Amino acid sequence: MANITKKVSWSSRCDEFGAVGEETPLLNGSDQARPLRQVHLDYDNIENQLFLEEERRMSFLAFRCLEISRWVICGLIGFLTGLIACFIDIVVEQLAGIKYKVIKENIVRFTEAGGLSISLILWAVLNSSFVMLGAIMVAFFEPIAAGSGIPQIKCYLNGVKIPRVVRLKTLVIKVCGVICSVVGGLAVGKEGPMIHSGAVVAAGVSQGRSTSLKRDFKIFEYFRRDTEKRDFVSAGAAAGVSAAFGAPVGGVLFSLEEGASFWNQMLTWRIFFASMISTFTLNFFLSVYHNKTGDLSNPGLINFGSFESEAMGYNLYEIPLFMAMGALGGLLGALFNFLNYWLTIFRIRYVHRPCLQVMEAVLVAAVTAAVAFIMIYFSVDCQPLAPDHTEEYPLQLFCADGEYNSMATAFFNTPERSVRSLFHNPRGTYNALTLGLFTLTYFFLACWTYGLSVSAGVFIPSLLIGAAWGRLCGILLASTTSTASTWADPGKYALIGAAAQLGGIVRMTLSLTVIMMEATGNVTYGLPIMLVLMTAKIVGDYFQEGLYDIHIKLQSVPFLHWEAPATSHWLTAREVMSSPVICLNRIEKVGTIVDILSNTSTNHNGFPVVVQPAKLCGLILRSQLIVLLKHKVFVELARSRLTQRKLQLKDFRDAYPRFPPIQSIHVSQDERECMMDLTEFMNPTPYTVPLETSLPRVFKLFRALGLRHLVVVDDENRVNGLVTRKDLARYHLGKHGLEELHLAQT
Amino acid sequence: MANITKKVSWSSRCDEFGAVGEETPLLNGSDQARPLRQVHLDYDNIENQLFLEEERRMSFLAFRCLEISRWVICGLIGFLTGLIACFIDIVVEQLAGIKYKVIKENIVRFTEAGGLSISLILWAVLNSSFVMLGAIMVAFFEPIAAGSGIPQIKCYLNGVKIPRVVRLKTLVIKVCGVICSVVGGLAVGKEGPMIHSGAVVAAGVSQGRSTSLKRDFKIFEYFRRDTEKRDFVSAGAAAGVSAAFGAPVGGVLFSLEEGASFWNQMLTWRIFFASMISTFTLNFFLSVYHNKTGDLSNPGLINFGSFESEAMGYNLYEIPLFMAMGALGGLLGALFNFLNYWLTIFRIRYVHRPCLQVMEAVLVAAVTAAVAFIMIYFSVDCQPLAPDHTEEYPLQLFCADGEYNSMATAFFNTPERSVRSLFHNPRGTYNALTLGLFTLTYFFLACWTYGLSVSAGVFIPSLLIGAAWGRLCGILLASTTSTASTWADPGKYALIGAAAQLGGIVRMTLSLTVIMMEATGNVTYGLPIMLVLMTAKIVGDYFQEGLYDIHIKLQSVPFLHWEAPATSHWLTAREVMSSPVICLNRIEKVGTIVDILSNTSTNHNGFPVVVQPAKLCGLILRSQLIVLLKHKVFVELARSRLTQRKLQLKDFRDAYPRFPPIQSIHVSQDERECMMDLTEFMNPTPYTVPLETSLPRVFKLFRALGLRHLVVVDDENRVNGLVTRKDLARYHLGKHGLEELHLAQT
Repeated sequence: MANITKKVSWSSRCDEFGAVGEETPLLNGSDQARPLRQVHLDYDNIENQLFLEEERRMSFLAFRCLEISRWVICGLIGFLTGLIACFIDIVVEQLAGIKYKVIKENIVRFTEAGGLSISLILWAVLNSSFVMLGAIMVAFFEPIAAGSGIPQIKCYLNGVKIPRVVRLKTLVIKVCGVICSVVGGLAVGKEGPMIHSGAVVAAGVSQGRSTSLKRDFKIFEYFRRDTEKRDFVSAGAAAGVSAAFGAPVGGVLFSLEEGASFWNQMLTWRIFFASMISTFTLNFFLSVYHNKTGDLSNPGLINFGSFESEAMGYNLYEIPLFMAMGALGGLLGALFNFLNYWLTIFRIRYVHRPCLQVMEAVLVAAVTAAVAFIMIYFSVDCQPLAPDHTEEYPLQLFCADGEYNSMATAFFNTPERSVRSLFHNPRGTYNALTLGLFTLTYFFLACWTYGLSVSAGVFIPSLLIGAAWGRLCGILLASTTSTASTWADPGKYALIGAAAQLGGIVRMTLSLTVIMMEATGNVTYGLPIMLVLMTAKIVGDYFQEGLYDIHIKLQSVPFLHWEAPATSHWLTAREVMSSPVICLNRIEKVGTIVDILSNTSTNHNGFPVVVQPAKLCGLILRSQLIVLLKHKVFVELARSRLTQRKLQLKDFRDAYPRFPPIQSIHVSQDERECMMDLTEFMNPTPYTVPLETSLPRVFKLFRALGLRHLVVVDDENRVNGLVTRKDLARYHLGKHGLEELHLAQT
Repeated sequence: MANITKKVSWSSRCDEFGAVGEETPLLNGSDQARPLRQVHLDYDNIENQLFLEEERRMSFLAFRCLEISRWVICGLIGFLTGLIACFIDIVVEQLAGIKYKVIKENIVRFTEAGGLSISLILWAVLNSSFVMLGAIMVAFFEPIAAGSGIPQIKCYLNGVKIPRVVRLKTLVIKVCGVICSVVGGLAVGKEGPMIHSGAVVAAGVSQGRSTSLKRDFKIFEYFRRDTEKRDFVSAGAAAGVSAAFGAPVGGVLFSLEEGASFWNQMLTWRIFFASMISTFTLNFFLSVYHNKTGDLSNPGLINFGSFESEAMGYNLYEIPLFMAMGALGGLLGALFNFLNYWLTIFRIRYVHRPCLQVMEAVLVAAVTAAVAFIMIYFSVDCQPLAPDHTEEYPLQLFCADGEYNSMATAFFNTPERSVRSLFHNPRGTYNALTLGLFTLTYFFLACWTYGLSVSAGVFIPSLLIGAAWGRLCGILLASTTSTASTWADPGKYALIGAAAQLGGIVRMTLSLTVIMMEATGNVTYGLPIMLVLMTAKIVGDYFQEGLYDIHIKLQSVPFLHWEAPATSHWLTAREVMSSPVICLNRIEKVGTIVDILSNTSTNHNGFPVVVQPAKLCGLILRSQLIVLLKHKVFVELARSRLTQRKLQLKDFRDAYPRFPPIQSIHVSQDERECMMDLTEFMNPTPYTVPLETSLPRVFKLFRALGLRHLVVVDDENRVNGLVTRKDLARYHLGKHGLEELHLAQT
């Protein structure tokens, strides 16, 4: 039998989730106690009697209409996401173009005059001001827009609602923020934020209203509930991936990997549709922008360029080499995550005021510019400029005429272009020293950058680090033996290195393989990429979790993984459940309900409804009770007023998703004595399990059905306890067997 | 409220499922009553107390070992499936090469001599003898190997066990049969059978033993239960798709579309691994065979060739044209399915003896050869032979020197090559009349061929028909206006036509899009292919179901679709369940159990176990009871014998999957009086639902958890009924609302 070792509770920096809430002691008892803002847990589903009745009344035609609306919404999501990606791409390209042109002219002017420090200062100031703008927006106006947004979307799709994560304001800040950070020359990418952007678009479009704009279009009201909204958000996330990488299938698999519970064919098909439309829209508008209308061959914000099979073919005996590189990627990824973990903890403790966060971001921007400048300045890697060169801003510096500085192609460029040139530039474009130094500096810069209060992704920096050391491996291999020089194409090894490094940091598997396959447009690389990602994951997992998982854990979110821990079969529902559980009677006194809801120690979201003696007859949600209280659906009142307005499903939908807190509802002393009949509003057939059900079975039920509350009953159908997401998220497979975590009270 | 209209029962031709069983009146009361062989329903899961205890005892290391074995098995599955695909491909290529060479030489010799009828006879005889060989194998030795096997695999993954479908003998017959039918020049493909072959390989490898070979390797014993086996079979099916089309991602999606219930990340990842290995193996061995070792750029048995984006780009205004072609494909597909449906019914009634089946197959082969010969003979479509022509067997016939007969490139070729030449041959290779005539004749030939007693797939014929009329559309478009001739590339329209026709016949959506995308190697065609497939499905579904679904329905299999019918919310478990249900006591008399199992009118597979008064305490399966009876685990006997062998999980596993029938177990009159304690062997925590649960909720639970039996209890936890797969499969959304089907008693 496994031992349950008790571990100290994680506490967390939850301002990213920014909602008002209670206070809690901080990590390791730091005296600078900061408020832990409340993270909303669990989805609420209006699966009550009213809803079931509505569904029963619906005709076949009505179902058809709903289905058609779903398709229309998914098409819209794809279209808008594609447009946003297109907007970001064009703005970044324009601004970065201007910036690099100005700096290049300045450098060219001062190279001979000898006043290169002026160029450095110009570069640093330009970068810092862009980053400052982005950081101010994020830190002061919408902290949730920081980072790539992927951990937040993962949580959302997993079933944990994080306040403000899918709001219009977040989207605006995210889009402007990512433009600023990319143009500001940070070691970041614009791909991760696209996933978040797609999700926000989806949440907005599917609800047919916007709270930020205070507009309700009175459409799609049926979709105003968590399960439907979640389905659309997964379509939005897929559309985002698809726009970012030109990988519609990869997008679908990303959504499934992160969000799916029960595989629903129609839903998957719709998600695929949204992804396709998104890639297509981006493609189409970019082709118009590039004056090549109709040329749809270069999808996605990042495109790895075409890997020609003949030139880039691999041999069977290279596969072990690739796997060794995968292992190296796993190691470096674990190191990256380890450093970032401690950096994040440092930030939670000491860098939590918005102005400090902005200052840190500006510092990083200036340091990045300075490091890049110094590296370029001291680089001696001069390469002849080919007549058909693809470098957009070749820097001559101290090289001879007709040559350019090779370090500058890596640093003096947007990261996307640098990745592509590492993949495709011919042999001899970079020398080994340049690549080694670049890897080293960029690794630490990227690690420092992730977690700053700017909106930015980690995909592209990871790819860039990996491509650099991968290319280095290729060069070293080619130099070892004479035969190796024929097959050790540095571009090929750059691709494998990029996959290894990215896999080692984010630890995605299936979807990442497909994304890489689609971005390279080469199916034959599927197997090596897959093996590399697997190796990287296995090696990396041995030391440290994936970057996103680390950040999710730091938020103390009750994230449910795919399966119950392997050795948990001996645990049963009896041990796992929360007990005793507060039950309501079918006809309950208003005062009792108000007291229960106001009691902060019982912050359950669902309450079993029982008939005496304790026999289960339904389940009602906190949010439903609040709507009932707000509309004063009390039995005594109903008798006294003749024209009592009957509560309808619409009332629940209008209140969704921001139900008022119990404190805002005033209930008079008289009203407290009234009764409430819950029969009509509760879910009459909640899922139940017997006491002896094993944890893996409970877990499977939870995940497969997307449950939020599972009532545990004895063999007389009496309520014995309630299993919630948090009860399941506690168990965790550590190095010494099963461990029980104490999740912070949220 | 929807009306339930009662429909007459389908009866079925079940010899394809060939197991012994009861008789049943036939379709429309034909007097030629034929035995309806019993179709095994439902998976059996050894999820009993013993199993749970084993899992509880297992250490973390043991779980790791299991996980590693799963990966090893998946790798093996992929490898073997790739090898089989390679074998089929090489043998077909060699044999077809010899055949076409012989015939061509004969034609060349006799064209001038004027004795072409001798060539015709030679062709017809060669084809017929190959087909006869294939048909004899299938009809006499393993009828289940007929057809593509996709309907059977769909059923298997859906949860319906069909006897002998995953046996070694079936695999051997399938492989030899498909070689014979393809070489025999039938309008068939070798891709469908690959899926079945992959599944058989998976079922064999994962069990670590073969009944046909009477070998038990004593490995992988843990996987000897239905859920595990099914997971491996889905990996095998994916590997098959992957080998057939060079589409590893498409293979994974095919498996998910057909088989997945709960999305399991590790499982999907393993399926992907099997697919990758399979494509890679095929690729590698084919590259060795073609003396281009290491060139892995042409994966799959069928490869559509590379669609260069610049030449084949499409414009926004072509999309409506594509969708119109999709609609046409849907119409033609529905016509195909309609004709095939009636043909199948005709075959069920009149062509059921093996020798008749062989004769029909031979007839079809002869007619195919004759029609092809006549078409080529009367064709006047002479095309100049380019110096770098790709035709392997260009027929000159009555064309001038340096020209060849264009009809012959379509007919005098393996279908795979014909498809590729329709996609890629330059403009003007075919004239419109040739394509029109070819479409017409091939359509009817393919329709006649599908359902013959030979093992063969319908993918390639569908693609070929569609490519032919698609190319025709392209030619017609180009001739209408002068501007259209610039963009209306016939190869592009051939691709769209092929997608439309295939979509119209098989009605797969997600996986087919991805398969087509991977086979063309062009992500930009994703959106048009998707829209075409959607249109084809919508139009086709209006008239007729998909071909596979028709064949599944004709077998009267209780196939569960993804979701409950849309308007079934008003139905509850109370109405759906089978009731009254036979329950067993926890300690039950042996005689009672034997009587219940022997009673053919209660052929349930699972029995609720109760304690008085009717309170549910477990569920036990027929197969478990049979093992218990076989080992005589009786309470009185146990007392009398001191060295009683305790029944172990191994005994259940050894009996799996072919549990003996109850008739073969002898129980003496004394033993009938003994008691059996079921506590240790039953599943102690079966899933239950209350009486008022709506049908969609029951359905979702069934599908998401892969259930076979769901106990319906009242609010006192007393057993009220049992919902089985058949109870759910009855409800069906027809044109007039919800319909209840009477599934044949099987």
